[in-house]
Amino acid sequence: MGAGYQVAAGIYELNAGLWAILDGLELAWEKKLTMLLVESDSVSAVKMVQEQSRADDTNLSEYVSDRDKRREFVSGFTGSAGLALITKDEARLWTDGRYFLQAMQQLSDQWQLMRIGEDPSVDSWISDNLPREAAIGVDPWCVSVDTAQRWERAFAKNHQKLIQTSSNLVDEVWKNQPPAETNPVIVHPLEFAGRSVAEKLKDLREKLAIEKACGIIITALDEVAWLYNIRGSDVSYCPVVHAFAIVTLNSAFLYVDKRKVSSKVSSSIQENGIEVREYSTVSSDVALLASNQLDKDTGLSSGQNGVCESGTCEAEENNNDLIWVDPASCCYALFSKLDAKKMLQQQSPLALAKALKNPVELDGLRNAHIRDGAAVVQYLVWLDKQMQEIYGASGYFLEGKGRSKKRSETMKLTEVTASDKLEGFRATKEHFRGLSFPTISSVGPNAAVIHYSPQPETCAELDPDSIYLFDSGAQYLDGTTDVTRTVHFGKPSEHEKACYTSVLKGHIALGNARFPNGTNGHALDILARIPLWRYGLDYRHGTGHGIGSYLNVHEGPHLISFRPQARNVPLQASMTVTDEPGYYEDGTFGIRLENVLVIKEADTEFNFGDKGYLSFEHITWAPYQIKLIDLSLLTPEEIEWLNTYHSKCREILAPSMDKNELDWLKKATEPVSA
Amino acid sequence: MGAGYQVAAGIYELNAGLWAILDGLELAWEKKLTMLLVESDSVSAVKMVQEQSRADDTNLSEYVSDRDKRREFVSGFTGSAGLALITKDEARLWTDGRYFLQAMQQLSDQWQLMRIGEDPSVDSWISDNLPREAAIGVDPWCVSVDTAQRWERAFAKNHQKLIQTSSNLVDEVWKNQPPAETNPVIVHPLEFAGRSVAEKLKDLREKLAIEKACGIIITALDEVAWLYNIRGSDVSYCPVVHAFAIVTLNSAFLYVDKRKVSSKVSSSIQENGIEVREYSTVSSDVALLASNQLDKDTGLSSGQNGVCESGTCEAEENNNDLIWVDPASCCYALFSKLDAKKMLQQQSPLALAKALKNPVELDGLRNAHIRDGAAVVQYLVWLDKQMQEIYGASGYFLEGKGRSKKRSETMKLTEVTASDKLEGFRATKEHFRGLSFPTISSVGPNAAVIHYSPQPETCAELDPDSIYLFDSGAQYLDGTTDVTRTVHFGKPSEHEKACYTSVLKGHIALGNARFPNGTNGHALDILARIPLWRYGLDYRHGTGHGIGSYLNVHEGPHLISFRPQARNVPLQASMTVTDEPGYYEDGTFGIRLENVLVIKEADTEFNFGDKGYLSFEHITWAPYQIKLIDLSLLTPEEIEWLNTYHSKCREILAPSMDKNELDWLKKATEPVSA
Repeated sequence: MGAGYQVAAGIYELNAGLWAILDGLELAWEKKLTMLLVESDSVSAVKMVQEQSRADDTNLSEYVSDRDKRREFVSGFTGSAGLALITKDEARLWTDGRYFLQAMQQLSDQWQLMRIGEDPSVDSWISDNLPREAAIGVDPWCVSVDTAQRWERAFAKNHQKLIQTSSNLVDEVWKNQPPAETNPVIVHPLEFAGRSVAEKLKDLREKLAIEKACGIIITALDEVAWLYNIRGSDVSYCPVVHAFAIVTLNSAFLYVDKRKVSSKVSSSIQENGIEVREYSTVSSDVALLASNQLDKDTGLSSGQNGVCESGTCEAEENNNDLIWVDPASCCYALFSKLDAKKMLQQQSPLALAKALKNPVELDGLRNAHIRDGAAVVQYLVWLDKQMQEIYGASGYFLEGKGRSKKRSETMKLTEVTASDKLEGFRATKEHFRGLSFPTISSVGPNAAVIHYSPQPETCAELDPDSIYLFDSGAQYLDGTTDVTRTVHFGKPSEHEKACYTSVLKGHIALGNARFPNGTNGHALDILARIPLWRYGLDYRHGTGHGIGSYLNVHEGPHLISFRPQARNVPLQASMTVTDEPGYYEDGTFGIRLENVLVIKEADTEFNFGDKGYLSFEHITWAPYQIKLIDLSLLTPEEIEWLNTYHSKCREILAPSMDKNELDWLKKATEPVSA
Repeated sequence: MGAGYQVAAGIYELNAGLWAILDGLELAWEKKLTMLLVESDSVSAVKMVQEQSRADDTNLSEYVSDRDKRREFVSGFTGSAGLALITKDEARLWTDGRYFLQAMQQLSDQWQLMRIGEDPSVDSWISDNLPREAAIGVDPWCVSVDTAQRWERAFAKNHQKLIQTSSNLVDEVWKNQPPAETNPVIVHPLEFAGRSVAEKLKDLREKLAIEKACGIIITALDEVAWLYNIRGSDVSYCPVVHAFAIVTLNSAFLYVDKRKVSSKVSSSIQENGIEVREYSTVSSDVALLASNQLDKDTGLSSGQNGVCESGTCEAEENNNDLIWVDPASCCYALFSKLDAKKMLQQQSPLALAKALKNPVELDGLRNAHIRDGAAVVQYLVWLDKQMQEIYGASGYFLEGKGRSKKRSETMKLTEVTASDKLEGFRATKEHFRGLSFPTISSVGPNAAVIHYSPQPETCAELDPDSIYLFDSGAQYLDGTTDVTRTVHFGKPSEHEKACYTSVLKGHIALGNARFPNGTNGHALDILARIPLWRYGLDYRHGTGHGIGSYLNVHEGPHLISFRPQARNVPLQASMTVTDEPGYYEDGTFGIRLENVLVIKEADTEFNFGDKGYLSFEHITWAPYQIKLIDLSLLTPEEIEWLNTYHSKCREILAPSMDKNELDWLKKATEPVSA
């Protein structure tokens, strides 16, 4: 999938001018701060997708709730990544190459754009340009431990200091800040979750014991939702709840706005031995945890909570005095309350546990992808008809030049109206709960913008002479989906066909790979690029990310990327991962093909080194467009793969199709030969 | 290529028993050492191949001169890798999986074998088993900075100390230690070196200036030989000289046993502004360098030495006060004389400079590989005839069952007599100067031993029913070669053919790759494995190493390996690298195919990202055996590649063939189809 998020209405009104805000920020200067760093969002919201951001290089976005769009409020810049810096005299905004153009358009001339990769980084700019002993203010709830520590190291050079502000200064000047959400927390039933909270807590406590930890602070929103089998709607596209969790060897806590928890849901949560506490008490509870007093504070008996049933826990606990925090997701505010000597800074054990799908989740994902594939095919059938009727296109199957018939004067199809229709098809499916990210629906040159997000007022009209790329997915109760197809309803050029075929070859090579246990996604990444590299082509994003089970569409800790990972995670059976190579020609067109794969044990003839071998199972079902393939470039093995995939598509989707749709699908999946 | 080295005669005589040696070592205990670490070799000799050892995982060896085989002297163990530890009461020898069996056979029961990967490592064993404050003696000339520092960190835990002995205690008890070599140093002429010493010194000094270094200590033997355009024969298979070099912004020194340098060679070296000094003075000169007095000590004017012609050097030099040492190759003895604050510990700039071959070197390598390929084909023609005549084999081309005729009673062909014949063919070629490593000539199960080195007394006889693998190379004045082919003179099994074909597919996939600048060998490695992984097959060694220009057959700093590199070196145009995947079935057979490739700019249709794309030029010429290929498993593209390669083989080697050989070659390189 791609990027971008919905622009929230009504936030801009206050942003009459930067200096009005700066006036409001005078309390920053009163506090003797030289500068204020404004991270866009509360860290818990941002960091839930942090693993994936690192993963997928450029093709990603962060979703946050409207009240957390603080960077957008002070700067007017709506991009998904960026950092604002405000001093008494000036304001600077750092963002990356995806957003240079957009930031130039949205920032007033009171702001200076800092281009990541070209201009100095935030920390070195501060270190080199601000006075010695400058105090740089930041809301410690809005910055991760990793980031804060990196800044502190950079600032130390010039004896500058990072100051934690006691309140968020942007919130104080943001008069019309949207209120906190009070969306209800729902219980994610066992028939979809596949594993009970008690079992998950038991596994987690075993990991705590192995690492000699007495407790863990869980800050990533999807980890909280996964562990406690709860879901919500506090953040667009991600069915998570704004919440923290603390789990000790004896107790488990959920910190959430209690208005969101009905008494029925509350009972259900408490039945699992979890105590529901007010969101704001996490801070004092972390302090209690640090002084080993949190467990004593709870009235829960330890018998309810898994590993400690034998009553041996207390003795064991004496050796286990570390508190586990994941520095990539934990906010600096909570971290600061802990004793550095009794801290285990390490990736959360829930990251891998969540990635290894259980059999119920895997079945759910397979089923969700069948319904989702049916919606995609229905959309293509509808779109094919529209393109012919409105624009006189030759259609999905024929190669005739587009516009053989005059364009209809009264009807019109845009990137947004088309994607609304696609959402409509999905909405008819069982268990549908919304989209998993904003649909990328892009015509011609817009398809070359990897993170393109069409807006109703400005988006392009469909065009029978241009490539159309759509990257979309949905949230179903039984699974999250993410699929990309690229199509042409007129006559594609030989160059477009050659590029589509190279992308397809890479997509097949990766999806078809077998590899020994221990192989990580970085090693596999090249398989998707080699067919493009042959012609001197490439793409500037990663090749695959994990996908949640009715959770975030981007999920770690593994990934398939050309960048070596900081945390090198081998691929394992029962993980999910996307296979999405592409090629983008600026100003002309873009191509991407994406399926979701499940990693499974491979049935190889031999087992050299007794390592066990793995392979991929495609669970996405939607045809590739034969018209865009130069069949002469495919090997016999690739053609066989294509025909087999298409035949399965037909077989699996047929029960969901009406006669007209089935006829179209049969035609779209007819076997081909070189 | 593979591994092993020649066993030196006459070393064992003294090794009557360990305790006799230990008695002799009493001076170690007098010096209050608890334990003595015996590295096998002088570090300068060992470390010249260190980069490659790291590279190629298992398929490598270290070559040292006989007087440096100290570990072998004390333990009797002749393997190429290992470390001996001696205390008053016991002796232990660490070695890796390649040598477990051999070490068990060679070590007396006074020694305990420590298995790397299974038993504790040397440093943790010492830390856990020796008393607090133990003193562990080591000859600082026999251990690299990296290793010594790693040990010191491990020993610190238990307040143990690494003690540098002032003399080598093994040498003191080794009465019949072979004398130091006095082989002559020769000048490597510009017509083969391609770049003058003056130019190389100028480049080096520019790099020193950039890094603010005033001098560099060069300890890797091949770097000394390359920089000064000299060669020697102090070490088997590697035409290097036991020598050190120091280069400052104004001066250049060569430290060598002066008996090796004729007056003519001495004049030639001095003409390049290099002062020849006695080998043993390097120690005091490093001390002078550290106190900034070395340059003043030389009578050379600075005008002769490159970058300093303008006379601005002195001023510049004041800012340049670092001394550059490569901790991977510099011995601890020299390092200890330097001031830690004025040291630049970084990979030697000569590693990359040496790897980037100049046009003369590239032409030389191409020519050497043509002569070498002719010798390989002549060998195959001869071997084919012998196998038919002596063993009644059906031969290279026919698939008939072997032994159709009774084996000759009087004649016999062994792995060693065969490889001697191969050496004989090479020896007839222009510029031949010897082998580049001990030929791996291996029949059947022996071919599954990756580092197999046949011995005259014990080696196997050739067999028309078994696979025969030969991995060999030579030193020519214009280049170093390394080639592996696997052949069968009878009827190979379907399984052997399937495995050979998978290895060939990987060999082609890697050799045929195009990739953007910035790609490293680790990323490419998977291309050679994917066809094997399909069947659950793999090999336990790296896929490619650099190769020298009449220098070491293994050369860094780049490599193609499944292990991420510590020093991540992207492949660059004009580097050399081998392409040598394999498959080894313990106790049955082994397959490896190896060509040398030159990296060149690729002529791609596009140039996405303006990165520039690279590809490989094969410079090895020897046919693959069609009989061992299951053609039905090859893609049309692979068959086309094979036919093109074979047609070039024919064209390029024909001028070196007699009629009989040419007929054979034509038959061996006939075009095939699926």
